[in-house]
Amino acid sequence: MSDIDLLFLSKNDMDSLNLSLSEIIQTIDQGLIAHGQKKVIMPSKSHLVLDFPNKLFNILKGYVEPVDAAGVKIIGDFHDNYQYGFPSEFAMLNLYDPKTGRPIAIVDATLITWMRTGAVTALGAKYLACDKPRVLGHIGARGTSWYNVRMLDLLFDFEEIRVTSKRPESRERFAAALSAELDREIRVMESTKDTVRDADIIIDASRLLDHQVLVADSDVKPGAHLQAYGAVLSVEPSLPFTVDKFVVDDWNQCKISPYGQFADLVQKGELQDEHVYGEIGEIAAGLKPGRESPTERNLFWHKGFAVSDIMLGMLAVKKAAELGVGTTLRYFTQAQDM
Amino acid sequence: MSDIDLLFLSKNDMDSLNLSLSEIIQTIDQGLIAHGQKKVIMPSKSHLVLDFPNKLFNILKGYVEPVDAAGVKIIGDFHDNYQYGFPSEFAMLNLYDPKTGRPIAIVDATLITWMRTGAVTALGAKYLACDKPRVLGHIGARGTSWYNVRMLDLLFDFEEIRVTSKRPESRERFAAALSAELDREIRVMESTKDTVRDADIIIDASRLLDHQVLVADSDVKPGAHLQAYGAVLSVEPSLPFTVDKFVVDDWNQCKISPYGQFADLVQKGELQDEHVYGEIGEIAAGLKPGRESPTERNLFWHKGFAVSDIMLGMLAVKKAAELGVGTTLRYFTQAQDM
Repeated sequence: MSDIDLLFLSKNDMDSLNLSLSEIIQTIDQGLIAHGQKKVIMPSKSHLVLDFPNKLFNILKGYVEPVDAAGVKIIGDFHDNYQYGFPSEFAMLNLYDPKTGRPIAIVDATLITWMRTGAVTALGAKYLACDKPRVLGHIGARGTSWYNVRMLDLLFDFEEIRVTSKRPESRERFAAALSAELDREIRVMESTKDTVRDADIIIDASRLLDHQVLVADSDVKPGAHLQAYGAVLSVEPSLPFTVDKFVVDDWNQCKISPYGQFADLVQKGELQDEHVYGEIGEIAAGLKPGRESPTERNLFWHKGFAVSDIMLGMLAVKKAAELGVGTTLRYFTQAQDM
Repeated sequence: MSDIDLLFLSKNDMDSLNLSLSEIIQTIDQGLIAHGQKKVIMPSKSHLVLDFPNKLFNILKGYVEPVDAAGVKIIGDFHDNYQYGFPSEFAMLNLYDPKTGRPIAIVDATLITWMRTGAVTALGAKYLACDKPRVLGHIGARGTSWYNVRMLDLLFDFEEIRVTSKRPESRERFAAALSAELDREIRVMESTKDTVRDADIIIDASRLLDHQVLVADSDVKPGAHLQAYGAVLSVEPSLPFTVDKFVVDDWNQCKISPYGQFADLVQKGELQDEHVYGEIGEIAAGLKPGRESPTERNLFWHKGFAVSDIMLGMLAVKKAAELGVGTTLRYFTQAQDM
């Protein structure tokens, strides 16, 4: 019998850890490599849908051998939360000792989700974009976008960054924040077409309620790298079939989880195993080549997976211990089996 | 923008709420009725299996209209935890506002799981056992068993209570605790056969690692009510087919979740829709009759569902507010969409 404590890290605690963009990217890369090397256990995410696509929870779970931790993230996707001044995604990550199932930490994962999604975006581009991409076209202005653009620019130092989003006030606010942070010009575009046409890297982080084509097949030039990861199809449905490489994060999850950008195509049986070049982890682990020619058009679909959350959650727990950040909660006094 | 707090209830906090057995049973009954009336959203539980059946997590999620709350419970099932002096099931329940996905509480659900399982056991017997059952035969001595026996005895005031479990020290300890609590004789049996034979109510709360027959078909007398809910088949596999009524808690979940007492029979296609009389919620809601004759043999398989956890979690949150129990955590300061 012994007391059991666990660590609580709030959104503010997470902010105060000041994780650097580069250490986040490096940590997420280690997770991708572990995934590619099959050193993870990760069933598909599951869902609790109150009102699709407006009100749902996604539940991600996994185990990552290199950090010897299991974790479960519960993340809301509530499209109308901006009306309350809330983020659309509240997320919490529970981390566990895989020997006993004892919880070791409860970590705000709102920030983790933004960070790890941005890092996967950046790493996707690292492995799949052309050498020295000049122009980034970015659709979307929510939490993940803030990390996408900064991490991509850290890797590539673009000549031109174009951003757009549905609501003028959100794209203006987003561009102003980016411009101040990166100390450079950010072009705010009114149309998605002007944003993405002939860009070297196109990131579609939109969150539609109904299918619309924000990225046409013809807007993706030879040599371009495209990513699209919204819950609703927002690019031309031909794209997974016409690109030279279609890469996913976890194909098993893509086949099981019924939501996400190309999920309908998978469910209908049109998008099949044969269309998938590989998983980003296989490329990160060096098991498959990434981009192979300057004119290659490729597309990376990431639904997001628990491995990334667990990697960043464990980094946060380690940092928090070093810095004395967080609240220690007494979970059990004198734990025992009844 | 506003600050967001949430309530943390530890195992000790849960203990200090002193929820009465009768209010727990009543609350769980309301959940069963809501389930029967289809006033819930409840996809199947899902699983993160590290090493079956020794090390896994079960993840239960749902929404319950009458209490207007969504919830996700993550519960470990780590068979060897007694070696560390730990409960085999550490569990945490997150409760959410279904309008925004905002977390409202993180509640230890180790106790909730024991309580709600005991209450479902008791309610199953209330609807399906014979009038004035005299003899209870109970297999198992872990957390849920402690609630099973006390709640059943509250409803039925048995003439004879027999208990057994695999390890002599655990059954002796269990019986001594029960005897002190109920101020009555508890018969400790060495064999499962002697425990269950000719009992009016047979509860098999065993946790096997491999299939064994602890309850033979012939030990279930006419008029007996049987429940079996371990993760591994522990009763004679003929039973779902030979009883007069085979009742489940949620048939959809029984078909999807691949673990539990009769799951193999379902997966193999042997146990089918036609064999299921109904769900306990339909009986609780008065949509189908429970027991219909004194000689009816019936079997209730409950895998456990999120509706029960959410009902009891919301009761705990309400009680905690009344009593000033728990720790308020600042989750977000000045929440906003980024």
